[in-house]
Amino acid sequence: MEIRLAKNYGFCFGVKRAIEIAEASKNATTIGPLIHNNEEINRLQDNFNVTTAQGISDIGDAKKAIIRTHGIVKDDLAKIKASDIEVIDATCPFVTKPQNIVERMSNKGYKIVIFGDENHPEVKGVKSYAINEPIVVLREDELEGIRFGHKVAVISQTTRKVSEFLKIANYLITRVSEVRVFNTICNATFENQDAVRELAQEADVMIIIGGKNSSNTKQLYTISKDHCIDSYLVENEKELKMSWFENKKLCGVSAGASTPNWIIQNIVSEIETYSISN
Amino acid sequence: MEIRLAKNYGFCFGVKRAIEIAEASKNATTIGPLIHNNEEINRLQDNFNVTTAQGISDIGDAKKAIIRTHGIVKDDLAKIKASDIEVIDATCPFVTKPQNIVERMSNKGYKIVIFGDENHPEVKGVKSYAINEPIVVLREDELEGIRFGHKVAVISQTTRKVSEFLKIANYLITRVSEVRVFNTICNATFENQDAVRELAQEADVMIIIGGKNSSNTKQLYTISKDHCIDSYLVENEKELKMSWFENKKLCGVSAGASTPNWIIQNIVSEIETYSISN
Repeated sequence: MEIRLAKNYGFCFGVKRAIEIAEASKNATTIGPLIHNNEEINRLQDNFNVTTAQGISDIGDAKKAIIRTHGIVKDDLAKIKASDIEVIDATCPFVTKPQNIVERMSNKGYKIVIFGDENHPEVKGVKSYAINEPIVVLREDELEGIRFGHKVAVISQTTRKVSEFLKIANYLITRVSEVRVFNTICNATFENQDAVRELAQEADVMIIIGGKNSSNTKQLYTISKDHCIDSYLVENEKELKMSWFENKKLCGVSAGASTPNWIIQNIVSEIETYSISN
Repeated sequence: MEIRLAKNYGFCFGVKRAIEIAEASKNATTIGPLIHNNEEINRLQDNFNVTTAQGISDIGDAKKAIIRTHGIVKDDLAKIKASDIEVIDATCPFVTKPQNIVERMSNKGYKIVIFGDENHPEVKGVKSYAINEPIVVLREDELEGIRFGHKVAVISQTTRKVSEFLKIANYLITRVSEVRVFNTICNATFENQDAVRELAQEADVMIIIGGKNSSNTKQLYTISKDHCIDSYLVENEKELKMSWFENKKLCGVSAGASTPNWIIQNIVSEIETYSISN
């Protein structure tokens, strides 16, 4: 069985940057998990004593607070900046962008629509920059019956599928005089999605590696599943099952933007052992 | 054979308004045809001595000039306003809107994309309000290879199909950070298109009445044809052919926004005579 990695996979610019920041900030506490990958967070704790607090009320006597890649709620950021704690901002610049757009458009009187998961920390952060409560949706049918007024600004969670974002945009364009569409889906998301689509069309088994709470990893998995029925989402090599690879010729591998290379390596090595026994 | 009119058809607000303006402006000259319906233009000439000039260089010693529903080029309007001629503006307000949008967005540095027919007088007028040459396209493949920069404003000719406009918008959204989408397709266009779609699904022959140079009439015809293969576009009753109605049960009728009721009546009366002889 051949094992082939997608042309683009794994760590994105924002995650790489955040990990470098964390490694350079020994003994700091991140507000919420730095990235959506528990294995990497454990490594940062073990090797750099970078701990994780659940929220700003939970940081105890930490001297340095790291803002996670997904950003945090505007008021929380203001509070912590006003305190004595040193704030180290590891918010991905591609997340800062929709935060700024929401703030600016909201100030200009645009109704804000966010395409994303309202329970995801990135979306919670981004929506907190609006003056009035934004509309947060995952599907266009959730927009039915809403009165939008004459001007709407629409943005996307950075890690979602562009085809779904277009559905939301199209719903709005047919109903609202002016729709200001900010495509805030990040390039790494695009590139990883394109690459997984291409590979899944060829492979007869696909392994997607990443945190099960990671939005971009879940998108990679659904795209993969669309093209290769035998697609599996795993966080580490222990979750692999030998039976998945029986009689397979090409195993495709991709990984979410918060998946470190050492995890990908462990998994590929494990699959190789099955391959030999096949 | 039953003859059924679409739920919405014919004269729109802008055309009605322009004809009232023309009827109240005896002996005036319109710059280009007031509306895209030769029969109605002949009636205005015969009954109100409202003549038609090809352009501003062609108005002779006219004392009053009427601006056609489709608007005219910005510079021409400025020239004629600076002359001694009284200017009577019959530009449809739904056309003035995209003219203003193009001017405003162009001033703000947005690249302008117009979805429409570059040879149509409305589009010629609208595009003349941009500082830099706008991109005018009818299909998204015409956008390939163009560099758009970071911000684009896109508008539509008022009389086009919304599904085609969305294709242009979607092409841009996937490639440009900010796309400001102004849905300038007018409501009458929407309503007439929805109604013809509904009727064409039931009818076994469809007659679409309107000028063959009329953009909105041509859109009605293509929508009708999508749902009813026996669809015909006619300007007057002389073009009808008895054979079209043989063995038909339901004849649907619709008309473009510049088609006066007296023409529709003539045609329906003519079809009724075939119906009797069937």
